[in-house]
Order: sequence, then C-alpha cells, then structure tokens
Amino acid sequence: MKYLFVLLFAGITAGAQVQKEQLNLMPWPQSVVVNEGNFALTKNFKVNITGNPNPRIFGGVTRFLRRLDGRAGIFFEQGFIAKLNEVPNAELQINCTKNGKIGLYEDESYHLDITSNKITLNASSDLGALHGLETLLQLLQNNSNSFYFPVSKISDFPRFTWRGLMIDASRHFQPIDVIKRNIDALAAMKMNVFHWHLVDDQGWRIEMKKHPKFTELASDGMYYTQEEIKNIVKYADERGILIVPEIDVPGHGSAILTAYPEIGSKVITLTGGTSEKNIQGTAIATYGIERNAGIFTPTLDPSNPKTYQLLSEVFDEVCPLFPGAYFHIGGDENEGKDWDANPKIQEFKKKHNLKTNHELQTYFTMQLAPMLKKHGKQLMGWEEILTKDLSKEAIVHSWRGPNEGMTAGQSLVDAVRKGYKTVLSNGYYIDLMYPVASHYLNDPMPKGANLTAEEKARILGGEATMWTELVSPTTIDSRLWPRTAAIAERLWSAEDVVDVENMRKRLETVSFRLEELGITHLRNKDVILRNIANNQDIRPLEEFLKVSEPLKGYTRNKGGTEYQMYSPLTLFADACGPDAKDALAFDAAVAQYLANKSADNKAKVAGFFNKWIAVHKDLTSLSANAPLVQPLLPLSKRLNDASQELLLVLDNKSTLKADNLKKLVEDCNTKDHADVELAVYTSLKKLL
Amino acid sequence: MKYLFVLLFAGITAGAQVQKEQLNLMPWPQSVVVNEGNFALTKNFKVNITGNPNPRIFGGVTRFLRRLDGRAGIFFEQGFIAKLNEVPNAELQINCTKNGKIGLYEDESYHLDITSNKITLNASSDLGALHGLETLLQLLQNNSNSFYFPVSKISDFPRFTWRGLMIDASRHFQPIDVIKRNIDALAAMKMNVFHWHLVDDQGWRIEMKKHPKFTELASDGMYYTQEEIKNIVKYADERGILIVPEIDVPGHGSAILTAYPEIGSKVITLTGGTSEKNIQGTAIATYGIERNAGIFTPTLDPSNPKTYQLLSEVFDEVCPLFPGAYFHIGGDENEGKDWDANPKIQEFKKKHNLKTNHELQTYFTMQLAPMLKKHGKQLMGWEEILTKDLSKEAIVHSWRGPNEGMTAGQSLVDAVRKGYKTVLSNGYYIDLMYPVASHYLNDPMPKGANLTAEEKARILGGEATMWTELVSPTTIDSRLWPRTAAIAERLWSAEDVVDVENMRKRLETVSFRLEELGITHLRNKDVILRNIANNQDIRPLEEFLKVSEPLKGYTRNKGGTEYQMYSPLTLFADACGPDAKDALAFDAAVAQYLANKSADNKAKVAGFFNKWIAVHKDLTSLSANAPLVQPLLPLSKRLNDASQELLLVLDNKSTLKADNLKKLVEDCNTKDHADVELAVYTSLKKLL
Repeated sequence: MKYLFVLLFAGITAGAQVQKEQLNLMPWPQSVVVNEGNFALTKNFKVNITGNPNPRIFGGVTRFLRRLDGRAGIFFEQGFIAKLNEVPNAELQINCTKNGKIGLYEDESYHLDITSNKITLNASSDLGALHGLETLLQLLQNNSNSFYFPVSKISDFPRFTWRGLMIDASRHFQPIDVIKRNIDALAAMKMNVFHWHLVDDQGWRIEMKKHPKFTELASDGMYYTQEEIKNIVKYADERGILIVPEIDVPGHGSAILTAYPEIGSKVITLTGGTSEKNIQGTAIATYGIERNAGIFTPTLDPSNPKTYQLLSEVFDEVCPLFPGAYFHIGGDENEGKDWDANPKIQEFKKKHNLKTNHELQTYFTMQLAPMLKKHGKQLMGWEEILTKDLSKEAIVHSWRGPNEGMTAGQSLVDAVRKGYKTVLSNGYYIDLMYPVASHYLNDPMPKGANLTAEEKARILGGEATMWTELVSPTTIDSRLWPRTAAIAERLWSAEDVVDVENMRKRLETVSFRLEELGITHLRNKDVILRNIANNQDIRPLEEFLKVSEPLKGYTRNKGGTEYQMYSPLTLFADACGPDAKDALAFDAAVAQYLANKSADNKAKVAGFFNKWIAVHKDLTSLSANAPLVQPLLPLSKRLNDASQELLLVLDNKSTLKADNLKKLVEDCNTKDHADVELAVYTSLKKLL
Repeated sequence: MKYLFVLLFAGITAGAQVQKEQLNLMPWPQSVVVNEGNFALTKNFKVNITGNPNPRIFGGVTRFLRRLDGRAGIFFEQGFIAKLNEVPNAELQINCTKNGKIGLYEDESYHLDITSNKITLNASSDLGALHGLETLLQLLQNNSNSFYFPVSKISDFPRFTWRGLMIDASRHFQPIDVIKRNIDALAAMKMNVFHWHLVDDQGWRIEMKKHPKFTELASDGMYYTQEEIKNIVKYADERGILIVPEIDVPGHGSAILTAYPEIGSKVITLTGGTSEKNIQGTAIATYGIERNAGIFTPTLDPSNPKTYQLLSEVFDEVCPLFPGAYFHIGGDENEGKDWDANPKIQEFKKKHNLKTNHELQTYFTMQLAPMLKKHGKQLMGWEEILTKDLSKEAIVHSWRGPNEGMTAGQSLVDAVRKGYKTVLSNGYYIDLMYPVASHYLNDPMPKGANLTAEEKARILGGEATMWTELVSPTTIDSRLWPRTAAIAERLWSAEDVVDVENMRKRLETVSFRLEELGITHLRNKDVILRNIANNQDIRPLEEFLKVSEPLKGYTRNKGGTEYQMYSPLTLFADACGPDAKDALAFDAAVAQYLANKSADNKAKVAGFFNKWIAVHKDLTSLSANAPLVQPLLPLSKRLNDASQELLLVLDNKSTLKADNLKKLVEDCNTKDHADVELAVYTSLKKLL
C-alpha cells in the first residue's frame, strides 16, 4: 500500500521518465542530455533575471510565463516582470552576460540546466536567453494530471547566422497583425531575420511623406504607415529579429512607375498628325498597378538622373525606419526589354562602355550602394546583381534553380568564390507548395563544391521566401507553417540532423504549439471549409483535404493570369497544403501491406478505400446545397472509383482487365479539377 | 426533353423561388417584399456608383465585392473601385444623394430594388448605402451550383440612432486587429457607435505625449499610440462608425493614480518619529495598477486644482484624436471611501456646500464639461453622473439593474423625465454570459412608463458592453458574437420584431457569415480545445461544449480575486459560450417527447443520453494525456450517471427510488467544476 502511494505520488508530481527521443524540440539543439527525474511545474513557479541583459528580456519572460500558464492552466503568481533580480530565490534563474545586439554574428548561444528543483538558463546575451526560453517551452511534458520539465542539460547555438523568412507584402498586402504574429513564430523557431518585401509590380507599401504619390497612386490604399513600420521594427527587436526591408528595383517597377512614370524606361513612339503638322518623337509611357502574376517589363531608367534623385530621396526616408545594417534592393528578373527599345538608354550604354544589360544593371546597382552606405546600410540583392563590377560589400541572395533554367544554388557557389557573402533561398520557396522534406534536406552548404573555409564562412545562411501571388492574409500562415519550422532547423541545427521521419514527428507538435502565438494555419482551414460547405458539416471536406494538395510550382496560376490579385482565395485549394496527412499514412500502410500481406495490413489499406468511398458520397450530398463543393466531385469520384475496384483487388475479386484497372488509377493523377491534385496517386500505383 | 432542359437551366441560373421566411436578414429590415424570380450572380457582375457620396463608399463597395466573390468563388472582373460612374451599365447601380456625416441623427435609410437583371440601391447618404450592401450580402442565396439574389424590394431605416458596442480595453488590452475586425462586424450589423473604454483601474491605454508617465507606469507597455488611434478612427469612419472614447474618472482611478498619485484622494496619516522629532501629518499615498476585478477605492481628488489641470491637459491631447461629438467620462462606481477619509476633501465639501459625495462628484463632473466643450465634445457618463446639478447637455448612460440593487433601466426613465438624453446598457451586459434571448427582448423603450413623445425622443438607443475581466484577445469575439447581432436587431428593427425562435434561426447564418470579416468566435473555440486536448482529437470536447456554459453573472470570478488580469483564459469555460447548442436541441426533444411519447420521440431523447455517455467515456480516455481535461470529468460523470439512469426511465426499467433519481439529476446542477455549468439540467428535470 505504501509502495503504491509512492508510485502514484511520483506519477502525479513528476511523470514517467522522459527519453530524449520523446522530446519534440525544433530546431534540435546542438547538445541534449536527459537525466533521470523531473522538475514539477506548480503555481509557485517564478522567474528571476540577473546580469546585464537588454530590457527586451523582461517582455520575453513575461510572454514566456503567459504561454506556459496558457498551456498548463496554472495560475502563476508572477504577472509582469519589469526588473532585474526581483525574486532572488525563484526556481528559474536566467543570467545574461550582455545586452544582445540585433544583427548578424551576435552570440546567440545558451545553456539550460534543469534539475528536479531548479532551472538555470545561462546565456551570453538576452538573445540567447530568449532562444533558451523557447527550448524550455518545448521541453514541457505532462502526464495525466500535471506538467513538468525533464531533468536535462542543453547547450545550444546556431549553425548559420542568417536564418530568415521573407514575406511579400506587395502582391497581397499583409496587415500588421499578420506580420506581428509571424515575427513571434520566427522567434519561437529561433530564426533571426525578417525580410520584408515591400515594393513590387503589384503595389508600393510604405508611406512616403515627401513623395505621397507612391501610396496615393500605387497602393490601392494598402500600405504601412511609417509609424506602423517603426512599431513593427520595435516589436521585432523585442523578439530578437532583424528586419531587412526590400524595395525591388530596377525591374518589378510597375507600382513605382505608376506613381512616377517619368523615370520609366518605356518610350512611346509618336507618329501621325496631319500633313501640315507631322508628329514625330517619343513620349513618356503610362503605367498601371499590375494585377496579374509574372515577370513584367516596367523598369526604371538607369540613364535618367531623376531616377537616382528619386531613389536617393526614397532611401533617405526609408533607411532611418530600419536600424538594421542591411537593405535589399531586389534587382531580380529584369529582362531589359524596355531598355533595348529605348534609344536614349542604348546611347547611354555606349557612352559608359556597358556592353550588356547586365552590365547596365550593375552600373545602376552601384549608384545605389553609396545612397545606402550614407545611412550605414549594406546593399543586398537577388543573385542577378552579381556581375564582375559589383562591390564586394554587397550580399548576394541566391534564388534561381532548375525552374529558371539554372543549376540549383549555383549562384551561391559563384558568389562565395568571387568573395561575396551570400544567403540561400533556392530550395526554400515555400509558396510553391512543395513537401516539407524537400526544403528540410536543402542545405545552404553545398555538397561537393570543395569550398575553402573562408568561402564557406561567406555563406551566411538561408531564407524561406513567401511570395504572395496566391496568398491572402487568411491563408498565409498555412503556407508558412509548419514548413518554415523545418527550414529553421536546417539553418540552426547540426548538419547531420537530417532524419525526415523524426523531423515529421516533432513537427506535428511544433505545428500545434504555434497556435498559441496566434498562427492561424490550423484554425483558418476550417474557416475556408465552412464557407465551401455553406455552413453545413465540414467533416467530409476535412477528410478529402487529407488526400488533396494544391497544385505545385507555378501550375495553379497558369501564365500568371488565371488569378488576379483580387481573385478569391477562398477555394478548396486554399484550405489544402502540401504533405497531405492521409497520403503519408496511406503510403505507409501500402508499404506495410506490400511487405507483408497479413489480414491486419490488408484491413488498414482497405480502411482508407472505404473512407474515401464514404467521403465521395458525403461530398455529393453536401454539394446539393454548396456550389463550391461541385468542383471537387469529379476528383472525389475518381478516387471513389479507384477505391472500389482496388478493394476488389485486395480480395482478389477484381474482374477488370489490367489496362482498365491501370486507367482507373491513372485517372487519379489529374490536375484538372479545383486546382488540387490527389496526393495518394503514387501510392495507389504501388498496388497495381 | 426540351422541358427538362429548361427546368435544369432555370435551376442552374436561378434556383427555386425564395420565400421571405427563408431570408436570414439581421437586423430585419423595416419592409421586405419578395417577388418571383431571381438575379443570377455571374462573373460579369459589376457595380457602378453615382451621386454625391463620401469617398468611403469606394472602399465599402470594393470590400463588398471581395466578400461576395469570397463566398461564391466567382472571379469578378472588377478589382478596386475608385471613381464615380466607372461602369455606367453595371448590374448593380448605387446612388447616394449626399455625403454621410458620422454621428447621430444622420439619415441612414436605403432602398434596395432587385429585379432579375438589375439591382438598384438608393440611399440618402453613403452610410445608408453601406447598410444596403450589407443587406444585399445577406440576401445571397444558392442552389446546388450557383448563387443568386431573390427579386425583392427592401426599404429600411433604423429605429434608434445610437446602436453601440463598448469594448473595455483596460482590464485586458485588446490589440488593434481585435478592434478593427469588430468594427467591421459592427458595420455588418448596421451598428454605428463604438465606445472605447480606454482607462480603468487595470490600465491606461492611450499614448500621452505631454504626460508619458501614464503609459510608462500604468499600462504594462500595452497601449494604443496616438497614430494607431487616428488610424482606427479613420477605419471606423470608412465603415460608418462613430467612436466615443472613455476615460473613466473620478473612480476606477488606480491606473491614473499609479502615474500621478499626487491627485489621489487617499491620505496616509504619519505618526511616529523620535521623542525629539515627532512626525505628525499626512503624506501622498502610492498606488499600483489593479490586477483583480471589482470596485476599488482609488479616486481622483476633486478638491485639488492639480486634478483639473491634469485632466484638462489630457483632454487637450485626447479630444483632437476623436472627431466625434461625444466624450465619455465614466463616473461610475465611486463609493467615495477615500473622500470620506480625507479631511481636506471634507473641508472642501463644506466650503462648497456639497452635502453628499454624489453632489461632490457632480461638482467634479461639471468642471470637466467645459474642458470637453472647448473641443466641441458633449459629456457622457454612466448613470451615477445624474444629479440635480448636472447640465442638461450631458448624456446619461443607464447601466444598473437588480445586480446593483436597482430597478432595471430605472435611471433611463429618470433621465429622460429630467430632460437628459440617454443610452441603455442595462440588459446588454454581454460579458455576463446570459442567453441571447434575454438581451434580444430587452427594449430601450421602457414598457408602461408612460413617457411623452419628447421624453421618448431622448432615448437615443442602446449599447452592448463588453467588459473584459475574463476576456482575452483570443476569446473576446466569442463573447461578443453572435449575441451582439441580436442586440443590433433590437436597436435597428421595428419594436414588434420579437420572435425569438425566428431570430435564433437567422442568427445561425449571421454568425457563420461573421467569419468572413475575421471574427474568431467559431475558429478560436477549437484553438482552446486543441490546447486542452493536448493535440489529441477534440471531438469529445466539442460535444461536451455543446451542453456546457460558462458560469453566469459575476460567479465565475468570485469576489473578483480568483482571476488576476494575467491569469490563463485558456480553460474549457473560455471555449464555452451561452446558449449551448445541444441544450436547446435537447430541450426541444424533451418537450416533444413529453407531448407525445412516440417511439421516434423517445429515440431522439435517448440519442442525447447515449451521446453523453459516450462523451464521458471519450473524455476519460482523452484525460490520460491531457491534464486540462481532468477538471471536466466530475461534470461529465454526473451527466453520464443521470443519462444512464434516465435511459432506463425512458424504458420503464429504472429500479431507482424517486429520491435517488432526483438526486442524480440534481447532481447535474452543480457549479463547482471547471467554471462551467451543465446547460441541460432544467430539461433533465422535466423528465422526472
């Protein structure tokens, strides 16, 4: 009896011994040692801060307490933490040696030591301590009636110094709350750079006091005020995040030129008039905000002094809003068509001995460098800025790959060999709806490139890019998360942390926990489905979503013209994401069955087929009062038809000819319906 | 065959004839006539605007198009509307005679005429047109594969000119995005006043340039910058909403006095010292931000000229941020304890011949009136400001009822009889978790009070009040909606629109549609449940939520001290709301069964019992890995036990004594677990 009591008591206050493999840490720390025992979380849990941290630690710890009590439902006594050494005997002791500086190369390491009655978090700077608090939150365990931390020691530091996310706020404007909650999520994933793509063909998004025409004519009324930007910068600073703004020039210029056509490259040749008054000459073209997706010709005129005058004034106003040391000037996808057609620009090229448009663009870029340097900013640009005359101070942002007819990441190798610092985004294009594994296994450090240590050191890290052609404020989080967490791990954790299955398991919990930061990737799926279901039961749609994935790459918006920037993004494809849940589970079931055709294994596979048959039936009845369900029916029917026949196949009862059976399965490989594809197709094929 | 084709075609383009009773309009318009036929919604749908509207109509129509295409998944060609008469032959023609003025007594009427190929929306002002667009959105119908509007004529105008919602941003700070999305929801419900409770014991929420101490010492860093406020005011203006700010004085003063203790009423009597140096006298008390809920003593000193000096400077800074004509100065719940204990204040009362603290408060209030008038503002205050010396220009905000020992709405009658304009909030306290019907049937126009026409005209309308002691940014929407929509109908629609069943039916759809405005009342329930379930299946919790309601009135936070302002609001009670869905359905099933004990009716009742038995079982297994489920088990067990026995009762197989059966049911009437109550208790009793 006494023995039983002790066991129960141990169960209540501590829980079973935790194994390292059970921990859902992400990014996985550099060193994790789990020992026996647990630290029980109670109402009396308190935090104390010592050392010389930046005051951002106070807000950080206060938020930590709110997240912890939100999870555990425990009413802590500590409310707002505002001072050093407030509770000297607190159970969690945080010590930071110094005030963390927002930027690259800061010491972000931390050491977490959890014993059964005390937790110590030591960090060089408060930035490291904030990372440590995220790890501590991820360490939280529970049994049936209490929460605890496992006794453990963690030492941690990042592998790369640039761990970024870019959000395109031009193509679809993303309001302040979207930016803020995603900054929180970045911090939770130990990322440290938010790259804010603020200007593109589809809109100018920065309030300009000296040049109000930018927002008056080229923003559709959707832009950030300067105070909002300052507020976001402060918010990011408090969470250890550097903001790198981007104004994309000289291409992607539709919005800029809508406001200031006089600095555009396009000339209109005037001919006509009457026989008395013959009109010959050129005139300034007019431009409009672009509503489609793609690469467009509007380009700034690099031969026009007014261009530099305006950009210089723009930088004078924008640079002071961002205290960070980097400024991204875009520079991508300038095809130079308007340059080729403009005689004045051709003349300018000749005069300055610029042989190609690429050289002309470098000329342009190099005019901007001192404008930025004046404000203490280093110039960064997409890889197209890389030419022989580019200053070695510029940072090259590597992005192109096979889709653009290039070798993946080649520009990164080229850049570091030529002495440039670089950041990798090729392979991290999360807007393209590729599976998490593809991003996870994409390492900024190129394999087999034989780089010197010096060259390797120039690889600053990587950056996930969230382009928003097909992304609304309602859907953006589900496009960002949870995949960005896997990229965060790639950029933080050791090179050999590459077990995809293990990553997936941890990602499941990490994804769930992102909800507490307000990330809407889970909740907003249901919102879209409720609209599609016309307020009927969404369960059939939820089930169908588990086997459906949005079309990948650039195939959903063919030619960039199917969706305008104001087209509805409330469709089934917008609720779906990559890595369809049941597709993965089904593939595992099929593999198991093929390895061992036991009754159990067969039943598992059959279970999926029966579910999909039911889903098609349910979707059909749902559609009677839901027009938005109609486009799914051809797809659910194909899966239904294949499922029905494959059920017979499992029982050796199919009488269909092999070709006809194959056709039933091949019919599931369609991309013609509702902008989604059936993610189970390849697994179905394995059964043939 | 031809006939069939015609039928099908009609089905596709128009749908079945709509009946007036099918329309889920809310607030119900003053006049609705539905005729035969439908207007089919297609890709070519366009809008044209004529007349002399305020430019806010352009944004309003653009948002209307996005909501419409979001629902229908139709790719309209029209993107952003920015000009009058852009598409003269558009199918929807909007004409507004004049520029709508934000404020009371503006003409908000509109006339909507839908024919099978044209829609005309005529309004006196753009404010009426915005209302008409909301009605048009609510009119949207669908069949299985298309969307349409029924041919109809609607003429509409509001019954009351003040249709408001108050949000308390002090007790729990509510970020900008919460405020913005709720302004959108107010506009969707044709409400026109947002009352922003910005200062209370728990925090000062306005950036003050001249007096930064307010936010430095009394906001925990959570406040609105002046630019954010201006931005919100503009946002509200664009949606036809007047903002009335509130700074609550002289009571509820903890935050103000935390920053400026020198204008507080509390004195500390000093005695002591040494025999050589005897200390006698008074000193200024210190104050702290209040962390509990309730009525507290910190009160501004009405005898101190510095009080008026500071308030005058505050108003000088705050008034210009709000262009509206009204300013709320609170004035409630001042018990005057610190006044009674302060000899200087007692002296002041005598000197000014002020007999009671109430008279002293009126003296105080009347000092503020000219400070506000200077900025063109009329003073408004909670009903306690009403005394014989109050200026007739003041607006009296009636709020007290039986809970405060008063007759419900008595102050409203008193006020209008004495010549004051008034707004009713008693009966609209939506934070108290009462059922929607109680608010819906609460009319600002008192029955049987025998008011003259002049007195009636002084009743401006009503205002729902969202106090936030137990409300976080995550939960606020579920406390506001959908009940506020029913209050909106009370304030807009004709007096005789009082059919609760009908209202409930329409509210179901209205509630669903609020999601498109970003309102989180539906989605965030699941967020809380996922946290409680520890990322396991939430369905058992969803089922249990359908019979559970949070404790009502002030019982959840007994004495105001169980929850601090930083306590977790992530519990089951925070996911639950009033009007538990299955409780209503169960009550109807019980009524049906008692009226007719048919097998079918019995099966329906039994179905609930079986479900609740399963729920208890599921919750029990869920709890093995979810500590936050544990507190629910005693409650689900009671419902399980009663259900099991009542199943036997239904079959006449129960062998339990009447008293024991009664006890099983009475056990379901408990408020001791998880801050919720079982909403099925009264219906269970009916079966005994």
